[in-house]
Amino acid sequence: MSEVRRDIVTDTWVIIDTENDAIPEVPVKDHGIAARDCPFCEGNETRTPAEIYAVRDNGSPNGPGWKLRVIPNINPILRIEGELEKFGVGVYDMVTGIGANEVIVETPRHVTNFFALGEDEVSRVLETYRLRIDDLHNDKRMRYILIFKNHGPLAGASTMSHTHSDLIALPATPVRVKQKLNGAQEYYSYKERCLFCDIMQQEIEMGDRLIFQSDHFVVIAPYASRFPFEILILPKRHIFTYKLISGEEISDLTMVLRKVCQTMYDILKDPPYNLILCDSPNLLPRTDYWATIRYDFHWHIEITPRMNRTTGFELGTGFYINHIAPEKAAAILRKNL
Amino acid sequence: MSEVRRDIVTDTWVIIDTENDAIPEVPVKDHGIAARDCPFCEGNETRTPAEIYAVRDNGSPNGPGWKLRVIPNINPILRIEGELEKFGVGVYDMVTGIGANEVIVETPRHVTNFFALGEDEVSRVLETYRLRIDDLHNDKRMRYILIFKNHGPLAGASTMSHTHSDLIALPATPVRVKQKLNGAQEYYSYKERCLFCDIMQQEIEMGDRLIFQSDHFVVIAPYASRFPFEILILPKRHIFTYKLISGEEISDLTMVLRKVCQTMYDILKDPPYNLILCDSPNLLPRTDYWATIRYDFHWHIEITPRMNRTTGFELGTGFYINHIAPEKAAAILRKNL
Repeated sequence: MSEVRRDIVTDTWVIIDTENDAIPEVPVKDHGIAARDCPFCEGNETRTPAEIYAVRDNGSPNGPGWKLRVIPNINPILRIEGELEKFGVGVYDMVTGIGANEVIVETPRHVTNFFALGEDEVSRVLETYRLRIDDLHNDKRMRYILIFKNHGPLAGASTMSHTHSDLIALPATPVRVKQKLNGAQEYYSYKERCLFCDIMQQEIEMGDRLIFQSDHFVVIAPYASRFPFEILILPKRHIFTYKLISGEEISDLTMVLRKVCQTMYDILKDPPYNLILCDSPNLLPRTDYWATIRYDFHWHIEITPRMNRTTGFELGTGFYINHIAPEKAAAILRKNL
Repeated sequence: MSEVRRDIVTDTWVIIDTENDAIPEVPVKDHGIAARDCPFCEGNETRTPAEIYAVRDNGSPNGPGWKLRVIPNINPILRIEGELEKFGVGVYDMVTGIGANEVIVETPRHVTNFFALGEDEVSRVLETYRLRIDDLHNDKRMRYILIFKNHGPLAGASTMSHTHSDLIALPATPVRVKQKLNGAQEYYSYKERCLFCDIMQQEIEMGDRLIFQSDHFVVIAPYASRFPFEILILPKRHIFTYKLISGEEISDLTMVLRKVCQTMYDILKDPPYNLILCDSPNLLPRTDYWATIRYDFHWHIEITPRMNRTTGFELGTGFYINHIAPEKAAAILRKNL
């Protein structure tokens, strides 16, 4: 079991795994698991927990014949069972570690790069994101569904190099999401316009941070990029939640993601990166705190190459230092896309 | 020149180096510069910028004969010259990159571990922290002086393995410091007691996260540790700023830091870590926003081993995942101290 603890000083939360005894080792050499040992490959289904969801042409659950599988994480940091309870520990507060921790195995083949998947495979992954969010939102304890990808050891990827996405359902809306929701809400209450729509508009007009435009998406290097070559993908249509993405938008996003990830791979030579789907929280019927969320929020994707390590500076300040201006990164990516 | 840019969505700031063109490479192998090539070693003074401050028995400035040197960072991210100005860029905001970026070279000898310094050397470093903060506070553009150490590549250390501290003076109080100041102020306004004094009291009583007590300091594993084996060092005397540390406290802290860093080295096998001095901001005469800071804030030191890499989860949420409970880390450190 784990505990979600509040740091009373900064009002931030930490998930503590209270069971583990192993001291983590400094990784000396990083390499992915080979195909023959890979539990995510077709034929090795017995080496993973029983599937939560799968797309399959033939075969039976937890056997071969699938195209995509969703399985519980074998070492979940949060568990689905139990009550969501709050405790005081002297001056401190904690919440029980309730949540869900799933893995979306994107292909039965041992492919290690997302962009190397076929179009049909990427579209299936994007459709699965939508389905899993929709399903998990039925559980009202789950306040936020975070879907992300870790590629490469420097981006925190495990040795499971077989391409996959991670999903963590959380019992509280994370601080970074709250910051975004609050920022968007403040802007909307002042301007009566969506902040993200205005950013998109400005970036298209200015052009120096614009990387690519498709029918339905705009790809930019954010003005205040925290990491070199950070990428922001915004849907042109103002929709507050990924749950409302259309089939046509999924097809278009498939093309955009494959193009962007391949270009990043070529230019930065297979960089470690994180990809994060930034969606709205699970809205509760009685919660009107974010009542205007339909108007002021706008789902998006962040891609952050992780070629730098954070130092005492980032830890001590919450600021980031970025050694490549986004205008320069955008120019390089644009030219090679 | 660099720019300090505001991310309008999260209300956080990023320093953008607008001059650099080099694409950072993924570090394949990390090793420190050898003694013969080290610009921080005695005799190589001409390979660094002219010193800002030095403690020396003999010799003349920028020549041999010193015991400790403070020099400007050769690649400063912020510069001392210029006006602090704010600009709008469409919907965005920026501030000019004014600040200071210094390096405290802690010994003329090529020592690569802080704890391996002599007692007199560590005390001199701690006294220099006080002097530099005091000096830089005279410049009212400098709102916050951050002093920190990066040890090992995974903690963001450069190839300059010769033991040193980094100092960055910032034109704004960083978000993490503000969070702490606000947390401390809220607690004080509710309880009329210092939050840190109460934490210390509770940790001494409970004992399970207590690592060590000296005459003047308490060493604990924080309740909501973000990293495995995270360490918090609090002065027993309630003082809001490091500038008021006494000579006796410096001697005591010298002993504590050497002991703690050596134990961490032994148990975790020379882990990468950051050490951060968490001090009050530079208080301006007319600023009464933190008027109660003398009562509610309490300086401290954070030491964070960096054996894990942050993933898309930390980036997407602002939460951390820690796989070692602080109670367990404290027990191991306590036993071996």
